[in-house]
Amino acid sequence: MSETSTKQRIGVLTSGGDAPGMNAALRAVVLAAEHYGMEVIAFRHGYEGLLNNEHVPLKGADVLHVLQYSGTIIKSARCPRFKEVESAQLAATNLDSLGISALVVIGGDGSFRGAHHLSQHWKGQIIGVPGTIDNDLYGTDATIGYSTAVAIAMDALDKIRDTADAMDRVFIVEVMGRHAGFIGLKSAMAAGAERMILPELQKDKPLTIAALVKHIKRVEEVRGAGSYVMVLSEHQWPGGAVALSEQLEAEYSLPCRPCLLGHIQRGGPPTSSDRVLASELGVHAVELILQGKTEVMAGIKAGQMVEVPLVDTWTKKNPLDANLLRIQHEIFNPVKKSARS
Amino acid sequence: MSETSTKQRIGVLTSGGDAPGMNAALRAVVLAAEHYGMEVIAFRHGYEGLLNNEHVPLKGADVLHVLQYSGTIIKSARCPRFKEVESAQLAATNLDSLGISALVVIGGDGSFRGAHHLSQHWKGQIIGVPGTIDNDLYGTDATIGYSTAVAIAMDALDKIRDTADAMDRVFIVEVMGRHAGFIGLKSAMAAGAERMILPELQKDKPLTIAALVKHIKRVEEVRGAGSYVMVLSEHQWPGGAVALSEQLEAEYSLPCRPCLLGHIQRGGPPTSSDRVLASELGVHAVELILQGKTEVMAGIKAGQMVEVPLVDTWTKKNPLDANLLRIQHEIFNPVKKSARS
Amino acid sequence: MSETSTKQRIGVLTSGGDAPGMNAALRAVVLAAEHYGMEVIAFRHGYEGLLNNEHVPLKGADVLHVLQYSGTIIKSARCPRFKEVESAQLAATNLDSLGISALVVIGGDGSFRGAHHLSQHWKGQIIGVPGTIDNDLYGTDATIGYSTAVAIAMDALDKIRDTADAMDRVFIVEVMGRHAGFIGLKSAMAAGAERMILPELQKDKPLTIAALVKHIKRVEEVRGAGSYVMVLSEHQWPGGAVALSEQLEAEYSLPCRPCLLGHIQRGGPPTSSDRVLASELGVHAVELILQGKTEVMAGIKAGQMVEVPLVDTWTKKNPLDANLLRIQHEIFNPVKKSARS
Amino acid sequence: MSETSTKQRIGVLTSGGDAPGMNAALRAVVLAAEHYGMEVIAFRHGYEGLLNNEHVPLKGADVLHVLQYSGTIIKSARCPRFKEVESAQLAATNLDSLGISALVVIGGDGSFRGAHHLSQHWKGQIIGVPGTIDNDLYGTDATIGYSTAVAIAMDALDKIRDTADAMDRVFIVEVMGRHAGFIGLKSAMAAGAERMILPELQKDKPLTIAALVKHIKRVEEVRGAGSYVMVLSEHQWPGGAVALSEQLEAEYSLPCRPCLLGHIQRGGPPTSSDRVLASELGVHAVELILQGKTEVMAGIKAGQMVEVPLVDTWTKKNPLDANLLRIQHEIFNPVKKSARS
Repeated sequence: MSETSTKQRIGVLTSGGDAPGMNAALRAVVLAAEHYGMEVIAFRHGYEGLLNNEHVPLKGADVLHVLQYSGTIIKSARCPRFKEVESAQLAATNLDSLGISALVVIGGDGSFRGAHHLSQHWKGQIIGVPGTIDNDLYGTDATIGYSTAVAIAMDALDKIRDTADAMDRVFIVEVMGRHAGFIGLKSAMAAGAERMILPELQKDKPLTIAALVKHIKRVEEVRGAGSYVMVLSEHQWPGGAVALSEQLEAEYSLPCRPCLLGHIQRGGPPTSSDRVLASELGVHAVELILQGKTEVMAGIKAGQMVEVPLVDTWTKKNPLDANLLRIQHEIFNPVKKSARS
Repeated sequence: MSETSTKQRIGVLTSGGDAPGMNAALRAVVLAAEHYGMEVIAFRHGYEGLLNNEHVPLKGADVLHVLQYSGTIIKSARCPRFKEVESAQLAATNLDSLGISALVVIGGDGSFRGAHHLSQHWKGQIIGVPGTIDNDLYGTDATIGYSTAVAIAMDALDKIRDTADAMDRVFIVEVMGRHAGFIGLKSAMAAGAERMILPELQKDKPLTIAALVKHIKRVEEVRGAGSYVMVLSEHQWPGGAVALSEQLEAEYSLPCRPCLLGHIQRGGPPTSSDRVLASELGVHAVELILQGKTEVMAGIKAGQMVEVPLVDTWTKKNPLDANLLRIQHEIFNPVKKSARS
Repeated sequence: MSETSTKQRIGVLTSGGDAPGMNAALRAVVLAAEHYGMEVIAFRHGYEGLLNNEHVPLKGADVLHVLQYSGTIIKSARCPRFKEVESAQLAATNLDSLGISALVVIGGDGSFRGAHHLSQHWKGQIIGVPGTIDNDLYGTDATIGYSTAVAIAMDALDKIRDTADAMDRVFIVEVMGRHAGFIGLKSAMAAGAERMILPELQKDKPLTIAALVKHIKRVEEVRGAGSYVMVLSEHQWPGGAVALSEQLEAEYSLPCRPCLLGHIQRGGPPTSSDRVLASELGVHAVELILQGKTEVMAGIKAGQMVEVPLVDTWTKKNPLDANLLRIQHEIFNPVKKSARS
Repeated sequence: MSETSTKQRIGVLTSGGDAPGMNAALRAVVLAAEHYGMEVIAFRHGYEGLLNNEHVPLKGADVLHVLQYSGTIIKSARCPRFKEVESAQLAATNLDSLGISALVVIGGDGSFRGAHHLSQHWKGQIIGVPGTIDNDLYGTDATIGYSTAVAIAMDALDKIRDTADAMDRVFIVEVMGRHAGFIGLKSAMAAGAERMILPELQKDKPLTIAALVKHIKRVEEVRGAGSYVMVLSEHQWPGGAVALSEQLEAEYSLPCRPCLLGHIQRGGPPTSSDRVLASELGVHAVELILQGKTEVMAGIKAGQMVEVPLVDTWTKKNPLDANLLRIQHEIFNPVKKSARS
């Protein structure tokens, strides 16, 4: 790659846990950059690659047909040592020696903290693109990967419903989202789950197994025998779905079966929502560079492209949609009736 | 069913072309009605059932696990004779004799015209819920079924890409949306199509086959041999994808293969987006009844529940998202470069 | 239902763990029975329903469009008390009082033991149809549900591969099949897993964690860094995938993530293989009745319909396909080379 | 690549229409070759690449994670000029100059004719691997890609059923298989179609539109109103599903909607059956080379690996499964009753 090119050169990396749609975002960054006459250099394995100077030029032809795949073709990694001052300085040196004037970081809050740390030691522009299935970033209505994770959890819950209905049984499906119940809430509503155990619902009044059993029994009274499917956000019960299931069976003779979806939620073809969102945000990131912006995340609010200070993305909190929570937890809860009824 | 019940009684029907998520909307209407102490009566086969007095009571237990299925458990139909005054009068009589004070109509613009017509002859409340894959209703950012139709079109395009790439070939996939390019635009972007032929892009300057062939050739020059996948909205080429494909082969010796998705776009499990949207809108419809509203459609704008006058839904126009159009048609178009580049 | 009909009357039930394709088998039994002029009575909830006389007539129209769904529309159940003599006698009385001359039992080995027990106390014909995801019945090359379970496990493994590749990580996916590695072997091969831990491979020489870590390291040496995906049959490691994953991380500092598919493997639309197999076996069961056969299971061997004594199905053993095992465990194992090489 | 290696060197190519699972077969060939100490050279774009000397070495690491994708990573092509003597001679020269002693051809009957033609002019071993969705090769119970094509057609039919049921409508889905009804028969049975129009059923008595309409009406009489879904093999009606649909509407006022699946049937993740079959056949092809075989196709019969003379694969005929045809066309046909009934 000629170092004497007069074209503006931007860098890009994917960092932290991978999210479906990262490839679509990467593709959008590269295609938009080409459209505007820029060159793109990708660092492999996230900040690790930035420190190790593991880089590769990316052209449109390299990314044309990657948007249908999850994962990230430039690989991702966690990089704890990036917190050190020396790391940020080394990264800055590497970026400068490649003639890179702006860096696009596709990742979640940890990646954005890294980007902020780098900005203290590097003069180039830094733009974040929200890539995380957890949807827990302030400043955007949706993060890349969230829609796909919900779709996969919903599909698992649909499958469980088939067998749960055949046997009139209780099931627990553990989904991702340890700090936020986004995946749990939306997949529970989409699949018509009887119960969800989310961080937000546990905060003030942690669930007891007795209360859970009481709900199971009440639901059966109200609507007759049938299946009962629970969505459990990770880290909301000691030992997770496996332990909770064993306890229900041991302590209450309630036959119950667990599923632990784990990283299945990060794979498969991204949903159209994630691909379109990633495409919009990737283009927006490049256009923010053209506008001279820095230390912002490209986001979407009410269908419009926005930018939000990187620091806000993890210092402020993205709450669950209050209306969804109300509908799923109250209106669709067979044991809660309106005072009016 | 006792006619002496003191509970408020509402009616519901699904009308016109079915849309994935109609069952989820129906379920939400029933669960919300039960929550608020109302009774629900469903009319089968849309307005036909309303005229024929073909009705059935629906309780929560009847609709608990229907939201994962497309179609509509209460069936739909087209009903041309509903335009007559006598039909609206008969419908009003039937509704009154059942003690129904409000009617929820789940459907598209034709169904809402019918609802408006009925409102001229019936004193009850009428609430519309937007159920159509075409997304062509004013007043809501999304209609129920649109997300699923896009997902299915995208999945077909992904499959075509596999084989198109293996053979470096040209393909045309015909999708629904004769009056509006919503499905075409979003599926084209989601699948990274090389070209889309939409009503909105044809309006001022209809596409010629020569221009199309020129684009195909230019794309090959710019990025080398490879696959070229086109999305064609229905009714945008005489004879559709089959005819266009034959012409390309006959007139330009360009091997090309067509697919006609047709009603496949209306089936399969609805996406989580459609199920969640349908759930929200179904509940919202019931709450609009409680608020005394009538002749409005329950919609979503910028993530918030809204209501819009029924008449507006078909007299005003819902434009394509300008940013998506710009990105897919210009930024991602390999033969268009920014002046800057 | 008239007891004076001159038509032959057969009973049918689904028993034990449900399997995808049971509905297709049920449909085939009903359609074939109608074709041959018989009546069908279904017992709900397996043997429980037979004891409780919970029965329902089934006609073609009732089962036309059920073959695309998993689960079983006539519900299944486990029924431990059916082992008692009194149960078999009660079942015989119920069958006789309904004028049923033959019973089709769709289920696995437990269900067939029940059928055999019943045959000691009832004079009617009994035909088994193999419905279990485990594929562990002697006398048939495939059981109904096995293909779908493999497909679901493979899909999960594909998703895991996406994220495993992005991070170059180790993953464990726990699948069903505690006594037999059918699902494990076939899904491992279909998804290109690096390792499988199956009952058949553990029998002589149980796996140690040290040997497992050694394999992981050797694979990395041979082919470079990358993802490593393991398929673990249930009950092959104390505490399953969750425990094994924790041990790898705690004892060997090897980051590893578990998934526990559980009953997800029993849901979703059955594969075409399962639907076609179920259709063939259901028809075959009815034709075996017409031929006067009893106490046999309808099976498929080398593409041909066969019958096998019910007792053989659980007393004899269905081994894993030796060629598949050899290919996946040796030929595709990067650390095993042929002596020739 | 060193020409002085002492390792045996084999060539591989994919030819003709691509089929899902070709990548899995390619992977199996490469992994088996490595296992046995051979080198593999792939020719890109089928015979075209063989003539143009467009080749690339393939190692295990290159193909590890390709089995989940349709298409073919070494591309395929049709190559009409390969029929000429000069082409076979050029191919032989190219193979010899690369030190290749055996060639594996993955494709259908056209590709095997090409292989046979080559064998007249080249002394090396030639092994065929059946890769075609049409399943129309003699000597193997299944070809690679057939299972996936059936799965995709079935999925489309399932989706059509949803909307057909909602509107009680008639639909026609056109599937691949112009010379053989394999995809049509199996997808029709798997999806419970009311009618199939296959080459084998048309041979003696071509279908008339009057007979078709009569069947539609009779089915409605027998089982009441409902959906009616037809599977139409390509080239079995002039103008295909689109024309037949228009005729039904124009001539008989029977509302009907067409779908044309086209090449969608060749894409998406291959089924587990196709991946496992491709893995077995790919390994078998390499082992046939080791055994000194030539001009044979690796096949599967009754679950066992077999070889069949290449010439037989297209000179002899693979009939439809008679039992499946009987079941779907007679037993499951609501208007045909057994004489017994």
